[in-house]
Amino acid sequence: MAIILYDLAAADECVRFSPYCWRTKMALRHKGIKFETIPWRFTDKEAIAPSGSSRVPVLADGDKWIADSWNIALYLDEAYPERPLMDGDTIRSLCKFVNSWCDISVNKALRPLALLQVFAILHDKDKDYFRKSRETMLGMSLEDTCADQALAQTEFIEVMALAEQELSTQLYLGGDAPCYADYALFGSLKWVHTLSGDTPLASDSSMRMWFERMLDLYDGYARNAPTAQI
Amino acid sequence: MAIILYDLAAADECVRFSPYCWRTKMALRHKGIKFETIPWRFTDKEAIAPSGSSRVPVLADGDKWIADSWNIALYLDEAYPERPLMDGDTIRSLCKFVNSWCDISVNKALRPLALLQVFAILHDKDKDYFRKSRETMLGMSLEDTCADQALAQTEFIEVMALAEQELSTQLYLGGDAPCYADYALFGSLKWVHTLSGDTPLASDSSMRMWFERMLDLYDGYARNAPTAQI
Repeated sequence: MAIILYDLAAADECVRFSPYCWRTKMALRHKGIKFETIPWRFTDKEAIAPSGSSRVPVLADGDKWIADSWNIALYLDEAYPERPLMDGDTIRSLCKFVNSWCDISVNKALRPLALLQVFAILHDKDKDYFRKSRETMLGMSLEDTCADQALAQTEFIEVMALAEQELSTQLYLGGDAPCYADYALFGSLKWVHTLSGDTPLASDSSMRMWFERMLDLYDGYARNAPTAQI
Repeated sequence: MAIILYDLAAADECVRFSPYCWRTKMALRHKGIKFETIPWRFTDKEAIAPSGSSRVPVLADGDKWIADSWNIALYLDEAYPERPLMDGDTIRSLCKFVNSWCDISVNKALRPLALLQVFAILHDKDKDYFRKSRETMLGMSLEDTCADQALAQTEFIEVMALAEQELSTQLYLGGDAPCYADYALFGSLKWVHTLSGDTPLASDSSMRMWFERMLDLYDGYARNAPTAQI
C-alpha cells in the first residue's frame, strides 16, 4: 500500500499551498518514496484524528500515522534509510536549526504577503475557521496584517539576507546537493509561489536561482504543481 | 614553531574580548592544536599586514598567514584534518549558515549591550579609532546605540529564541558534540561575558546551560580566561 499524505488544499483541490506539506512532499521525492496525496481542508479534522494531530502534514504509512513535518522527516530517515534527508546526528541538528529559522523568521515575514491570498482561495467551509484562528493568533485582522505590502516586501528581503548570502557561494543550503534544510526553506517560498504564481525574490538574486533549481528537482515536481488563479 | 594567533586585547592585555577571535581559539582547542596568542590592538595594523587583513583573528602558521575566522576554520580543517570542526560538505555548508546568523543577527543584537563596555576597557591608543569606525558604521554615537539597555535585552532574547529552542532538546547546536556552529555562537556570548563577567541569558534557560557547558570545554579554557573588571 502506498504511503498516504494528507495535503492541505484550496477550494480547487489541485492547489496545494501549505509550506509544511511542501517540506514533506519534497522529502518524499528526495528519498524516491512513492506516495499518494489526499486533498485535505482545515476543517477536515476527523480524517486525520488517528494521527493525534489537527493539522497537516499527516502521513499514513500502513497502520502508522505520523504528524508534523519535522517528525515526518525523522520518521522517513529512520524507516527508509536510503538517500538520507539528514545523514547523521550533526547534520540533523543543524538542519533543525534551519528548519526552526524558517518557522520563526521566514514564515512570519511571509504572513503579510500570504494570508489574504490564502483566505481568497480557501474552500468556503474553511474560511471562518481560518480567519478566526489566524486573527486570534495575530491579535489583528487579516486585512490589517496584510495592509502594508511594501513594508512586508522590505522586511521579507531583510530576513532573506542570511539565505541570500549563503546561496551566493553554494548551490544549496546543504552544499553541492539539497538536504532537508533546503526543503524547509523551499516550503516557505513555494507557499507564496502557489498562491500568486511568483515569489518576492529579485530576479537577479541567488535565492531566485536556488528557487528555480528547487522547482526543477525530481522531474520538475514542484514546478508542475498547479498554482492558484486568483 | 607553534601557531600564532593575533588576538584582540583590551588595555589590560589579559582581557581578550573579540567574538571572532573566540571562535578561532575554541576551534584550535577543539582540534587539540597548540598555539600561542599575541595580544593585538585595533591600531596595530602593521603587525598583521602580511595577512592582507586589517582585523583579527589572524593566524600565522609557519610562513602562512590566514585572516578571518571563517577562513581560518576552513584552513584548520584542511591543514589538520583530525578532529574536524566541520566534517564534510553538508556540515560545512550548514555551519556557514549558523556562522552567518551569528554575524548578522546575534552580534547586531549584542552591540547595544557591548559597545560602550568595549570602549571603556580599550587601550587609549585604540579609543579614537574604535569610536570613529563604529559610529560611522552605525550612523550614530556609541552612547545613542547603547541608550536603551532594557530594549536591547528584550531584542537580544527575541533573537536568541531560535537557539533557545534548539538547545532545549540537544546538548549542542551540533547535536551530541560541539561543532563549529557552537563556537560561532559561543564567540558572540563570550564577547559580552568577557566585558561584564556575565551574559544576558536567563539563569534557567537552555542557552545558559549550553553556555556553561561551553565554558567547561577543554579543561575550562574559556571559563578560565580573564574578564574585564570595570
